Amino acid sequence: MSSVKNPLILRQLFHKETSTYTYLLACGNTKEAVLIDPVLDCVERDLKLLQELGVHLVYGMNTHVHADHITGTGKLKEALPDCKSVLGSKSGARADVYVAQDENVKFGNLALECRSTPGHTNGCTTYVLHEHEMAFTGDALLIRGCGRTDFQQGSPSVLFESVHSQIFSLPKHYKLYPAHDYKGFSVTTVEEELAHNTRLTKTKEEFIKIMDNLNLPYPKRLGKFCKITSSREI
Amino acid sequence: MSSVKNPLILRQLFHKETSTYTYLLACGNTKEAVLIDPVLDCVERDLKLLQELGVHLVYGMNTHVHADHITGTGKLKEALPDCKSVLGSKSGARADVYVAQDENVKFGNLALECRSTPGHTNGCTTYVLHEHEMAFTGDALLIRGCGRTDFQQGSPSVLFESVHSQIFSLPKHYKLYPAHDYKGFSVTTVEEELAHNTRLTKTKEEFIKIMDNLNLPYPKRLGKFCKITSSREI
Repeated sequence: MSSVKNPLILRQLFHKETSTYTYLLACGNTKEAVLIDPVLDCVERDLKLLQELGVHLVYGMNTHVHADHITGTGKLKEALPDCKSVLGSKSGARADVYVAQDENVKFGNLALECRSTPGHTNGCTTYVLHEHEMAFTGDALLIRGCGRTDFQQGSPSVLFESVHSQIFSLPKHYKLYPAHDYKGFSVTTVEEELAHNTRLTKTKEEFIKIMDNLNLPYPKRLGKFCKITSSREI
Repeated sequence: MSSVKNPLILRQLFHKETSTYTYLLACGNTKEAVLIDPVLDCVERDLKLLQELGVHLVYGMNTHVHADHITGTGKLKEALPDCKSVLGSKSGARADVYVAQDENVKFGNLALECRSTPGHTNGCTTYVLHEHEMAFTGDALLIRGCGRTDFQQGSPSVLFESVHSQIFSLPKHYKLYPAHDYKGFSVTTVEEELAHNTRLTKTKEEFIKIMDNLNLPYPKRLGKFCKITSSREI
């Protein structure tokens, strides 16, 4: 670790009910922090952790507009008025800061590169922390799988292109952290997914066929979510 | 990471039903691996992951005899006959290799130092990976808490001494990985627990009083577990 110029404080946090991962990242030098994909039900936990670690939240970021849980960004901003919400520019929801392809979100001496990875939703964004060789892929890429493409502007063809051009093109040893996992996995690498992803190692045609035949039930919280986003920031 | 002589492959794995963490550690150079606290229900998942990562399991290790879930060590050994089970020498259960204070468990070019941390059970062992500045604390130390002390040779007085002498004495920046978490936390540090552990920052007398008054229900799986350990290796 001593070769890294700017140390990172990283905490992977889990919401059991929706199997959602939230990530707390802080610059070890300046203590400026971001939360990626905070969950409304866990805001009290996350606020306490920020305080205990002595870090200062500058951004509450979302990889996308969530259908399966309600973001905690709005509630975090109520508690920490200096904190700004961040969202992909094509998400179609309210935020303080919209980010597009190749833009950087800075916290302290560290920066997250934004890569547009639509296909699960139009606004899906993968955040890459090059200095620490890792990326936060949201629902675009899950461990051995991917997010569904059958609602919220989903498109298997677009998702396939996104993952191959924006995530699988990263160096093979980069760690990948997803927004969800349902089997108890917490992290993967580009190399692992290139070899073992059950869907994205297929041809584009095969992938589209798989995704068009998943026959998944409608997300439990989608209705609740839509009501909330119409009246408050996500 | 480039300053580390022997790279580590680390995977934190979760069993949702019992909120148990299993750790896969492998030497990045030789690909020899260990699993700490494997869960019976997850053995198929873990075997697949070992295969996908191209690593070779040499030890199935337990931090202690578990009351809240059934270890996967026996089933792993059936699938991988070269693998040996490892357990603290005072655990009172069967294993291939018993480890005592200051012994090392080697996998490839890496080694886990064994520290005896009784108090939750007599045989509780904390495994320290000095080269990567981390320790696996089992149920002796949990994030902001600790394992219960009201059955299986539990003793709050002994646990207090174990944690203070064997875990809190590690360098402050060492990462600590517990065997369970119930609030979605995945990792902590010695420094964090020295400052914020809700029980172990108290005096020994206060700690004993807290632990003697938890009034917890009897573990659901304790009966099942005892039946199994009498007839098979844990």
